[in-house]
Amino acid sequence: MKNVEHIGIAVKELEEAEKLFSKLFNTNPYKRETVASEGVLTSFFQVNQTKIELLQSTDPDGVIARFIEKKGEGFHHVAFEVDDIVTEMNRLKEEGFTLLSETPKPGADNKLVCFLHPKTTNGMLIELCQEIKS
Amino acid sequence: MKNVEHIGIAVKELEEAEKLFSKLFNTNPYKRETVASEGVLTSFFQVNQTKIELLQSTDPDGVIARFIEKKGEGFHHVAFEVDDIVTEMNRLKEEGFTLLSETPKPGADNKLVCFLHPKTTNGMLIELCQEIKS
Repeated sequence: MKNVEHIGIAVKELEEAEKLFSKLFNTNPYKRETVASEGVLTSFFQVNQTKIELLQSTDPDGVIARFIEKKGEGFHHVAFEVDDIVTEMNRLKEEGFTLLSETPKPGADNKLVCFLHPKTTNGMLIELCQEIKS
Repeated sequence: MKNVEHIGIAVKELEEAEKLFSKLFNTNPYKRETVASEGVLTSFFQVNQTKIELLQSTDPDGVIARFIEKKGEGFHHVAFEVDDIVTEMNRLKEEGFTLLSETPKPGADNKLVCFLHPKTTNGMLIELCQEIKS
């Protein structure tokens, strides 16, 4: 694993959250992106080397909506950049971690992603992400 | 605010968690440190530019113990590096954020720290930290 690529934050109202985090980070979000397959609308801040991704559900029964219902708004996941996502997925599977998908999936921000089950990572939802090279 | 300096993770058993995260990050923790004033025993991993801090309560009634009771193990806080903590505290206070201390306090890893109240930051416990220059 390389750097923390981004930290994902579950929010109820993206527009309100964008205002709040713009004040907090003293900078504006640089893009919005919908990930239809995940039922989320995202907004990205660049805080030096790390990105902060706000996530709002576009579906009242989506993963983010259900997360907020259970745990409230706040930290949702942390994403680590990897050079080769398949190699890292295999390494982690051999170490006993449970992956949430058998193969990498397309995520926001031009990435291939895979999540680890929080039950095997001390309650943390961890994402592996690899830049899609065009 | 500059980089994400570290991400803090609440754990019940530091030794068990160290084993788990060593497998996850494919590296061992580089130090343990007790912060008596906060009632925590901490352990640090370096994952490239970002540190991961595991936090175990040393007090059954301490902040980490109470956090785990309420929310379970997992994400506890995210710390942003700042050049001048007092200036940043003043800026954030003026923006309407609530600080958990009026002045910076000594934290782990040779830092002056101040936390923001999660009620004003979308449920996120955010730490500001500034390296103590000797």
